Amino acid sequence: MSEPIEFYFDFSSPYGYLMGEKIDALAERFQRRVKWRPILLGVIFPAVGGRPPVEGGGPKPRYTVRDFTRSARFLGVPYNPPSRFPLPTQNAARAYYWLHDQDCALARRYVHAVFRAFFVDDRDISAPETVLAIAADLGVDRATLAAALATPELKARLKAENDAALARGVFGSPYVVVDGEPFFGADRLPQIEKWLAEGGF
Amino acid sequence: MSEPIEFYFDFSSPYGYLMGEKIDALAERFQRRVKWRPILLGVIFPAVGGRPPVEGGGPKPRYTVRDFTRSARFLGVPYNPPSRFPLPTQNAARAYYWLHDQDCALARRYVHAVFRAFFVDDRDISAPETVLAIAADLGVDRATLAAALATPELKARLKAENDAALARGVFGSPYVVVDGEPFFGADRLPQIEKWLAEGGF
Repeated sequence: MSEPIEFYFDFSSPYGYLMGEKIDALAERFQRRVKWRPILLGVIFPAVGGRPPVEGGGPKPRYTVRDFTRSARFLGVPYNPPSRFPLPTQNAARAYYWLHDQDCALARRYVHAVFRAFFVDDRDISAPETVLAIAADLGVDRATLAAALATPELKARLKAENDAALARGVFGSPYVVVDGEPFFGADRLPQIEKWLAEGGF
Repeated sequence: MSEPIEFYFDFSSPYGYLMGEKIDALAERFQRRVKWRPILLGVIFPAVGGRPPVEGGGPKPRYTVRDFTRSARFLGVPYNPPSRFPLPTQNAARAYYWLHDQDCALARRYVHAVFRAFFVDDRDISAPETVLAIAADLGVDRATLAAALATPELKARLKAENDAALARGVFGSPYVVVDGEPFFGADRLPQIEKWLAEGGF
């Protein structure tokens, strides 16, 4: 069986969200699985000399905000520009890894719920209460998850995932690896599709 | 008649070259013309806080170099990574505007010849002799062009074009404007096509 496609993203990344809405269906068409790996751009950017695409004003950030919305329309994905953006996402990411260790199908429903809470319903996904409410709606016991979020083990788990991503060469979101070949950005979906169809090109 | 599509690019921009190999045929399918506007990223980047995509080393520049080659294969465009990259392109750009004022069809043949000299044949397009040789191969009188390249008028012309591009919001290459809508990057070709087909989306 083929290795899973690796998909690194930050929960507050618009292009990460767009990739997240497309990658599973694309992988399924080629009988491939996807390993979702939330990371923190707040850790990745300082380590690689990157910066948030909308930081600092000027023509490029203005264009990028416009491109978020247009690219969502292009891909047919619902998108409402969040009023607070970007946000820290460590709580959302830690909850993902905790859920994933128990039920990976549930974790997949959770990532979509978090993305849509932020990019469709404009909820503050940086707040632990929002993360707990989203998980509770999926049937997770709120108190158990709240206790887990406070443990040093779960914090260390996310730190290890960020370190592993940096070691893998990840420098932004979305970052997708197909059989060793890296693809950066939701706009690389057509190249990923061709790579999957032809085993490289 | 519709306004022409505006296409801003630097002669040493790989993604600008890829766009340049595609934009005319795409525009023709929709009975549109393209206004080619070479600019200097060496002027644009300092003005907008940008930087060359391969500067500084690290994982993102390494990825970008790989993506240049892969994106060229994806689009079916011949591409050999230039051994000197990036290069200053003021001579190539000034010659373009001089030629364009006399014969716009010739200027179009010239841009393709310069792009291919750099990205296929690895010639040093920063050197005036290379620019003159490329133009001479297209039937241009070498001494007349050499004299024009030395004039303050032609230098001022390129400076005015850079200033106009900055005023237009241009922050990188390729930057394409279709009926007021800006598109940055060769990877926006599918969005440009949809925009032309549907008059927006």
